[in-house]
Amino acid sequence: MARILITSGPTRQYLDPVRYLTNGSSGRMGAALAQAAIDLGHDVVIVSGPVQVDYPKGAKRIDVMTTREMLQAAEASFQDCDGLIGAAAPCDYEPVVVRTQKMSKTGDPIHLDLVETPDIVAAIAAKRGPKQWVVGFALETEEARFRSIVKMQKKHCDMMVSNGPNAIDSLLNEVEILHRDGSLLDTIRGDKMLVATGIMSWIERELISPE
Amino acid sequence: MARILITSGPTRQYLDPVRYLTNGSSGRMGAALAQAAIDLGHDVVIVSGPVQVDYPKGAKRIDVMTTREMLQAAEASFQDCDGLIGAAAPCDYEPVVVRTQKMSKTGDPIHLDLVETPDIVAAIAAKRGPKQWVVGFALETEEARFRSIVKMQKKHCDMMVSNGPNAIDSLLNEVEILHRDGSLLDTIRGDKMLVATGIMSWIERELISPE
Repeated sequence: MARILITSGPTRQYLDPVRYLTNGSSGRMGAALAQAAIDLGHDVVIVSGPVQVDYPKGAKRIDVMTTREMLQAAEASFQDCDGLIGAAAPCDYEPVVVRTQKMSKTGDPIHLDLVETPDIVAAIAAKRGPKQWVVGFALETEEARFRSIVKMQKKHCDMMVSNGPNAIDSLLNEVEILHRDGSLLDTIRGDKMLVATGIMSWIERELISPE
Repeated sequence: MARILITSGPTRQYLDPVRYLTNGSSGRMGAALAQAAIDLGHDVVIVSGPVQVDYPKGAKRIDVMTTREMLQAAEASFQDCDGLIGAAAPCDYEPVVVRTQKMSKTGDPIHLDLVETPDIVAAIAAKRGPKQWVVGFALETEEARFRSIVKMQKKHCDMMVSNGPNAIDSLLNEVEILHRDGSLLDTIRGDKMLVATGIMSWIERELISPE
């Protein structure tokens, strides 16, 4: 039995008290992965951005808002976990200046300076112990497999799940599961529970209980 | 009996196929206003951004994504309506350039040029017929009443509902109802259904069936 950390959902980066940058991640893939892991007898900790989805009751849930909060909660939780599944879609840009009051419209264009937020999967993979494993997710709209392999190697993941933008806020998904050596382990298409079960069985076989 | 158009929820302005600007509007205030209007025997059309809330079954619902789509749908629907309640929180900035492919992270800061989106309530109020009425909503974090009155006059609304940022994505609300002459008609605090019923009774008295 393993203890698995799953990051899930989007994060938000506020410009002011009202407006923010985000994406349409629903947390459904994270919820399905949590259920699939619990079904295999594993312990699950979920660090989730703001979502409406119901996570399995058997999972421990930690709620966060921003990418930095997600990183902090994930790093803390990972210390007593065997592996990380980075299924979240953290907002990867944050405004340099966050206004404390709502900006008033003036009719003029505005210029927003954004910097990249920390990469949660890469940060955790860089500091992991010798027996801990890390599975990343990539969402690319062009050259998906090639870019996913590059991301996997750059972030030092053991496995990468590559999905297209249609996965976001959808009940269905189509993924390629890539091994750290760059080989294609599997292609799975179907509802998110079916896809999650397939991903978990590869994680089981390759990372939790390898022969 | 009146036919009432209600705009509700947030809108999204995409930067690329994945990332967008938005706000935390849940559509709950719009849903509660629709129910309160139906309870008074009125016909309701809702133009809504992406929300999870359940709107009353008796209302006609039109779904939109961006502020321009909301404007277009609202203008078309308003032609056979008696009044508009602008309860939506449309995203009021849009990127000058929308990428067709997901931006890749490079490690460098990015600069985003944003322009204001059309103001839906102002645009509809400017073109309304002599018997049509318009109720706006204002959300301010500073000098709320003063700024709401300025907004009401600038947008040519007959009534303005002023609420604070705590209203967003909350079950509760606290509002001030302002008359076009600048006077305070009422202050209501409570769950959104109670607040909606109060607002609708002022609309009924002042705009639908004035003595």
